[in-house]
Amino acid sequence: LTGVEDETGQPISAMTILSLLERVAGIIDNVQAGQQRMEERQLELENNIKNIQGDVLKLAKDHTTTNGTVEKLLQKTRKVSANVKDVRTRVEKQNVRVKKVETTQNELLTRNKFRVVIYQG
Amino acid sequence: LTGVEDETGQPISAMTILSLLERVAGIIDNVQAGQQRMEERQLELENNIKNIQGDVLKLAKDHTTTNGTVEKLLQKTRKVSANVKDVRTRVEKQNVRVKKVETTQNELLTRNKFRVVIYQG
Amino acid sequence: LTGVEDETGQPISAMTILSLLERVAGIIDNVQAGQQRMEERQLELENNIKNIQGDVLKLAKDHTTTNGTVEKLLQKTRKVSANVKDVRTRVEKQNVRVKKVETTQNELLTRNKFRVVIYQG
Repeated sequence: LTGVEDETGQPISAMTILSLLERVAGIIDNVQAGQQRMEERQLELENNIKNIQGDVLKLAKDHTTTNGTVEKLLQKTRKVSANVKDVRTRVEKQNVRVKKVETTQNELLTRNKFRVVIYQG
Repeated sequence: LTGVEDETGQPISAMTILSLLERVAGIIDNVQAGQQRMEERQLELENNIKNIQGDVLKLAKDHTTTNGTVEKLLQKTRKVSANVKDVRTRVEKQNVRVKKVETTQNELLTRNKFRVVIYQG
Repeated sequence: LTGVEDETGQPISAMTILSLLERVAGIIDNVQAGQQRMEERQLELENNIKNIQGDVLKLAKDHTTTNGTVEKLLQKTRKVSANVKDVRTRVEKQNVRVKKVETTQNELLTRNKFRVVIYQG
């Protein structure tokens, strides 16, 4: 006989096979729907990643700019600091000269007062 | 009867079932191919993410270094600014002394001129 | 006859169809397991991306802060540099005055010495 039977020789109706096939189709539908969802999320992830890459690139450029400014500031500050030391040294040298002028002036004043006294004597 | 029939009692040929199975196989092949593609893209995404994580980590380190330099610059600039104020104060004090010396000198010059006149008289 | 037969008219046993369905079920199981794994990895990727986005956002904020500090430093340094130039100019003007006072004092000293000689004569 060419009838469709199961292992135990029981006949299997076409309905059983068709309902099995239907269940398979249902499962595959679910799998395909899941795959569709995952593909959409994967596209979202790809877009997120591209955005992040753009953000990181921009941030890296901004950082390079900032770093360049900081480098210039370092040099500028060193220069200004050297200028301050230079001015301070000049002020100190000038201070020595002002002190000397003051001392000599005091001596001159003392001498002049003495003379004034002589004249008046 | 053990014959394979559909709901309406019509016989279903093995060919119909086999062709349904073949269609199922074709769909599953597509699903597997899609899954394969998605796995490859997922690996790409993972690599992209790893690269981005590396970039972000490097950027964070660079930023920490730059920030450290900026902190030092802030302190250095405060120090230089304080030094400038200090030098300015010394210059101002010196200015008072120079003015005093100038005034006294002018008085001395006036007195000396008077004397010179006396002598010449 | 309603028997299930293949193309060549050979009977197809229910076993053949059931074993084909079983193979299909096995393949679908694999596909579903693969999909499950990919979904888990996709969630991981999403979490990784969220973490990276957080890191990048924090880094961007930190960079903005650092950049703001650098901007202030630039202004401060320009101000300090201008102050140094100002002080330097004052020191230079003072230098001219100190030199003049020194020169006049030397003249006064010379004159005074002459007079002292006169007196003593």
